[in-house]
Amino acid sequence: MKLTTAGESHGKGLFAILEGFPAGLKLDLTRIDGELARRRGGHGRGARQNIECDRVEFLSGVRDLVTLGSPLALTVKNRDYENWKGCMAPEGCDASARPLTAVRPGHADLAGTEKYELKDARNILERASARETAVRVAAGTVCRLLLEKLNIFVAGYVRSVGSVCDEKEYTYAQILSQRGKDLCMADAEKELEAIELIDRARAAGDTLGGVAELRVIGLKSGFGSCMTYEEKLDARLCAALMSVQAIKGVEVGLGFSAAGRFGSEVHDEIFAENGKRIRKTNRAGGIEGGMSNGEELVLHAAMKPIPTLMKGLRTVDIVTGEPVIAAAERSDVCAIAACETVLESVLCTALAQVVLERLGGDTVAQLAARYEAL
Amino acid sequence: MKLTTAGESHGKGLFAILEGFPAGLKLDLTRIDGELARRRGGHGRGARQNIECDRVEFLSGVRDLVTLGSPLALTVKNRDYENWKGCMAPEGCDASARPLTAVRPGHADLAGTEKYELKDARNILERASARETAVRVAAGTVCRLLLEKLNIFVAGYVRSVGSVCDEKEYTYAQILSQRGKDLCMADAEKELEAIELIDRARAAGDTLGGVAELRVIGLKSGFGSCMTYEEKLDARLCAALMSVQAIKGVEVGLGFSAAGRFGSEVHDEIFAENGKRIRKTNRAGGIEGGMSNGEELVLHAAMKPIPTLMKGLRTVDIVTGEPVIAAAERSDVCAIAACETVLESVLCTALAQVVLERLGGDTVAQLAARYEAL
Amino acid sequence: MKLTTAGESHGKGLFAILEGFPAGLKLDLTRIDGELARRRGGHGRGARQNIECDRVEFLSGVRDLVTLGSPLALTVKNRDYENWKGCMAPEGCDASARPLTAVRPGHADLAGTEKYELKDARNILERASARETAVRVAAGTVCRLLLEKLNIFVAGYVRSVGSVCDEKEYTYAQILSQRGKDLCMADAEKELEAIELIDRARAAGDTLGGVAELRVIGLKSGFGSCMTYEEKLDARLCAALMSVQAIKGVEVGLGFSAAGRFGSEVHDEIFAENGKRIRKTNRAGGIEGGMSNGEELVLHAAMKPIPTLMKGLRTVDIVTGEPVIAAAERSDVCAIAACETVLESVLCTALAQVVLERLGGDTVAQLAARYEAL
Amino acid sequence: MKLTTAGESHGKGLFAILEGFPAGLKLDLTRIDGELARRRGGHGRGARQNIECDRVEFLSGVRDLVTLGSPLALTVKNRDYENWKGCMAPEGCDASARPLTAVRPGHADLAGTEKYELKDARNILERASARETAVRVAAGTVCRLLLEKLNIFVAGYVRSVGSVCDEKEYTYAQILSQRGKDLCMADAEKELEAIELIDRARAAGDTLGGVAELRVIGLKSGFGSCMTYEEKLDARLCAALMSVQAIKGVEVGLGFSAAGRFGSEVHDEIFAENGKRIRKTNRAGGIEGGMSNGEELVLHAAMKPIPTLMKGLRTVDIVTGEPVIAAAERSDVCAIAACETVLESVLCTALAQVVLERLGGDTVAQLAARYEAL
Repeated sequence: MKLTTAGESHGKGLFAILEGFPAGLKLDLTRIDGELARRRGGHGRGARQNIECDRVEFLSGVRDLVTLGSPLALTVKNRDYENWKGCMAPEGCDASARPLTAVRPGHADLAGTEKYELKDARNILERASARETAVRVAAGTVCRLLLEKLNIFVAGYVRSVGSVCDEKEYTYAQILSQRGKDLCMADAEKELEAIELIDRARAAGDTLGGVAELRVIGLKSGFGSCMTYEEKLDARLCAALMSVQAIKGVEVGLGFSAAGRFGSEVHDEIFAENGKRIRKTNRAGGIEGGMSNGEELVLHAAMKPIPTLMKGLRTVDIVTGEPVIAAAERSDVCAIAACETVLESVLCTALAQVVLERLGGDTVAQLAARYEAL
Repeated sequence: MKLTTAGESHGKGLFAILEGFPAGLKLDLTRIDGELARRRGGHGRGARQNIECDRVEFLSGVRDLVTLGSPLALTVKNRDYENWKGCMAPEGCDASARPLTAVRPGHADLAGTEKYELKDARNILERASARETAVRVAAGTVCRLLLEKLNIFVAGYVRSVGSVCDEKEYTYAQILSQRGKDLCMADAEKELEAIELIDRARAAGDTLGGVAELRVIGLKSGFGSCMTYEEKLDARLCAALMSVQAIKGVEVGLGFSAAGRFGSEVHDEIFAENGKRIRKTNRAGGIEGGMSNGEELVLHAAMKPIPTLMKGLRTVDIVTGEPVIAAAERSDVCAIAACETVLESVLCTALAQVVLERLGGDTVAQLAARYEAL
Repeated sequence: MKLTTAGESHGKGLFAILEGFPAGLKLDLTRIDGELARRRGGHGRGARQNIECDRVEFLSGVRDLVTLGSPLALTVKNRDYENWKGCMAPEGCDASARPLTAVRPGHADLAGTEKYELKDARNILERASARETAVRVAAGTVCRLLLEKLNIFVAGYVRSVGSVCDEKEYTYAQILSQRGKDLCMADAEKELEAIELIDRARAAGDTLGGVAELRVIGLKSGFGSCMTYEEKLDARLCAALMSVQAIKGVEVGLGFSAAGRFGSEVHDEIFAENGKRIRKTNRAGGIEGGMSNGEELVLHAAMKPIPTLMKGLRTVDIVTGEPVIAAAERSDVCAIAACETVLESVLCTALAQVVLERLGGDTVAQLAARYEAL
Repeated sequence: MKLTTAGESHGKGLFAILEGFPAGLKLDLTRIDGELARRRGGHGRGARQNIECDRVEFLSGVRDLVTLGSPLALTVKNRDYENWKGCMAPEGCDASARPLTAVRPGHADLAGTEKYELKDARNILERASARETAVRVAAGTVCRLLLEKLNIFVAGYVRSVGSVCDEKEYTYAQILSQRGKDLCMADAEKELEAIELIDRARAAGDTLGGVAELRVIGLKSGFGSCMTYEEKLDARLCAALMSVQAIKGVEVGLGFSAAGRFGSEVHDEIFAENGKRIRKTNRAGGIEGGMSNGEELVLHAAMKPIPTLMKGLRTVDIVTGEPVIAAAERSDVCAIAACETVLESVLCTALAQVVLERLGGDTVAQLAARYEAL
């Protein structure tokens, strides 16, 4: 299975092809559009999100809402393309309109214009934008529906927003039941604190990032590999998370804090209980030796603050060479809740890929039977 | 370019094929064996490291120490294979000898035996062992020599050992000049503290991990991609680091701490100086929008403590189902210095791959000319 | 560079994403639509081709007709989707409508229904249909435009239709100047014979295939590889040609007839002429040792006759198990001229891929400079 | 599963890594060495073949002759390396010794020296040589043993040697029982004719090629894909065959002759017999719509005559620019029988890859159960 995406932020829309997906999965459009709505939400988002009332449309690979085994083509249209046509239309437009020459720190602008030898960052930012994640959420939700057929479930929540950090531990059930308020945090009080912090940041023209926790239940042991370095589950999942715009760090289980402890405080001992092997801790985050070990997967990803600040960052105009203040094309203050949705989707895609590589399966029924038999 | 590795910990040796490598690189065996020696070193290592007086041998792809453009086959032999032959020989042996049934927490043992339906973890641990990294260091050093032809240099040091953490900032030059003592730390005082901590851990039968910092200088802007999520430089480099045994977290630049700050404290403003664009900070760690931005690359990786403790961890025997204490097959207390060497090598390989994909180049001379022309 | 396609024969359309394509190529829509028109043409085509007045539409990766470096999404819509909506719509339809249970010999029908455990071949034939090649022609023409910037040109013609075979040799210029009549043959007399044969086949309710010759000029030496078997130019180009529906054989240069001759009649001797190395023959078809050798590429591909015969083939109904006559859903008698267009496009795509892998190139200008410097 | 090969013709040996291979396959070294012997055989071979008394050695991935699931490293040593050490040793030698400047037509010499900007073709020919196929035969035989566990069997024979062509049809059983004489032909009389032809060619200082037929029994339907062009079984198998040195054409079933017939003479009608669907013909060669259809696979590959002629071919010295006669470094007259062995091996590898991608399978037992359940 492979997911390929395309599309510019102000172009016709986002597009994706998901190939190698098994036949026979019943899709639930409400579910997909629901995830797309989650991706636009969260306290701290700007005006753009209202424009983006995103809906998925399947272009191929699906018939009467059931996957065919052929490649799925899908799109999430850009609602404001009509307003940008004159500047963005593939078939003809004024490509010198709406230039961006004050390259924005923290964005792809500078490196991109250098790479493609441009005097205008428009062609770079249109694709580098996190708008691209809309179609990754749509495709990721298709993958999520597949995983759910195997009783593998993925959820997440926001652990911290800027300096406001929730250090408590939650069960998977708690995450699901408590999640879904303004910031996707699990503790109501912490969420209020975080909202306040965001409001303060907005007032100061500043921005915030945060940390998301991702959890997976129902994944049996042995996914990934201890045999080839490229197939290690942790390496693959972390690459997936790190490929999301603005992510600067990823960790599995205790992650960085494991490095600060003694071995006796880090490893998950194994016990016998009613003829089964069980663990009482899960500091490994469900991955040992590059493979799932049958415990819950626990991963963290750190998102940097939105790099477009209303108060402006100093930069240089790449045409004039003069010092200028970077423009704020969008006005989000904090997008960690949305990012958490994206991370879940991306994780679903990566997991579905790993599952399909191990089990094959032309149809969902075959796949489910093989998973059951493990 | 692709690196494929093979080999068991107590088998004949480790093997690798490096294909797609350009012709015309003069190899320096001393340099490669030197890195192999660095990989065995560091305060806190056990007796096994003395056995492993590793040397690289090239089997193909090289003639009179110059690469041919054909695939490089290389090996690092296992010096104690003679003692393990009876139990490990491919062509015939007693494969029931030296079984491991008390699956060790923190290792691949349990997940591996479940995956391959085994009653003995020997076949799993032989490959899952970090011994595999010996040949990744050898191949990675070949890649390093190539990068150096482009004036790209990679170095690293140990930032923390258990709770002993060095928070200071170092220039690339400082790292090189100060590094190379017992633990590869950059601060002599901190290193003494760390050594003491390791000695205490050893006395307690416990183990330690740590954090390494990796740095790259000389990498021009535009490597990686803002166009396709799989080609993002941060995603690719983090996958490479995460593929190293025992790594549980990776970050770029400020990493997780970026999530705790305001945007105005995170992004690197751009200034004009003598007609050039410069940065006064490098919190991004040299990557923006999935591409190198021309600044130094700065990455961190967190290594968990060695999961084999002399004082033993509780586990279950997979044959008898009885609770037992996991055996300590090797006696390292802390391997973060060695791990740092491995991380540098793995980073060199991943970077060389990215460079070759962007520039092509049948020969080193062509590659260097194209890099120069960027 | 990678081309991914999607789309069903009677669905909304055909879709493709072309990723890794350099920035800065000016597209010529007339050229692309012209190739799409060529793909529908040729004496012997049925009524369906009139419906398919295909036009390419770019959805992303292009702005004002210039490629951006971002993935190109493109579509060729299905004009008769409106009539098929009730049976094919992804978002809801009667998926039991228009079943095909009399699996057609020579098609994917039988193997496909077995693979996906279906009692109706509709889901199979919709994707397996050669309709998919429309979008491969569109994308292939984009690649052709890129190759032409490097002065690499691809052309082809029909060498045989059924038993009517043109054994003469043509220069590249002759192919271009003489081609383009009803069947894309190079000899007017032979073409008349072939047209007659097609008319006779049509009268008999039968079908015909043929052989196409593909030629490439301007390709410098050294593309492909003698170092790794998967990178051999002949293996890659033949896989590309063989991936076109109905192709049953491919050959390079003399191909099968080389096997019937003595070595002294097969190899192309090398001569010195004005300080240059030249060849007086090109029996190798421009490939030696898995690499281009600087001569013209010459390849042949054999297309089997259309497997849907008006006079019907005997088969079995997969629901009833009863013997039946396979239905003729389309009425082409011979599609070799169209197939020749497809083969050219597919060859352009494969060549562009090989060129980009060797030379890299973020922009067309960089790529052209590197090609020139070879 | 992926097979990577390395090694030069006169270097230490040939090396390969086969990764992604399931655990639990019992290897049969006699079988592998037997195929290596077959590869050296056949009337028309030169003196070199006696030197090459090849034997496989497993370096990793195998324990007591059973595969572990870890990557298999294997080698076929070069017996005459001792004589070439001074000229070829990776760790130091006289790399200007034994130069080849009279680039040989039909070989990689000219294109290779141009690509790598060399004045001596030694570095090219060492890797481009068909000697590389020794390790592909060894690895391919490992794959064959795996296929046999699924009751998939591969065999082949020589259909023609130069102008001597055997047009008869054989059952799989006949091929096996009749094969194995001097030239691997199935008709004793034809083989005598062919031997005579080879002797005449030898006397004339000339060389010959031929055509091999490959057959696969036991492959169930649905392998390959009608959904994505790169996964088509015919495209993949033909790429594999075409990657063998000296192959200039490949075809499936009727292949090129299908293009010369009417559709009614080409397609394999389907009949009901005792509740089963059967075919009375197999002109498709077992592949329809890019998938196996449950019939025998039938493929042909055309080998060009050996390009090194004792009577010499005219060429140009790349150092002096003077016309010279290409040297004959080896003295085979015809290697089609050996090539047939190589083609079988390569086909086994490609088929095993396709099978593993569809079915997954960590162990041979799992794989066999899934194949059985199809």
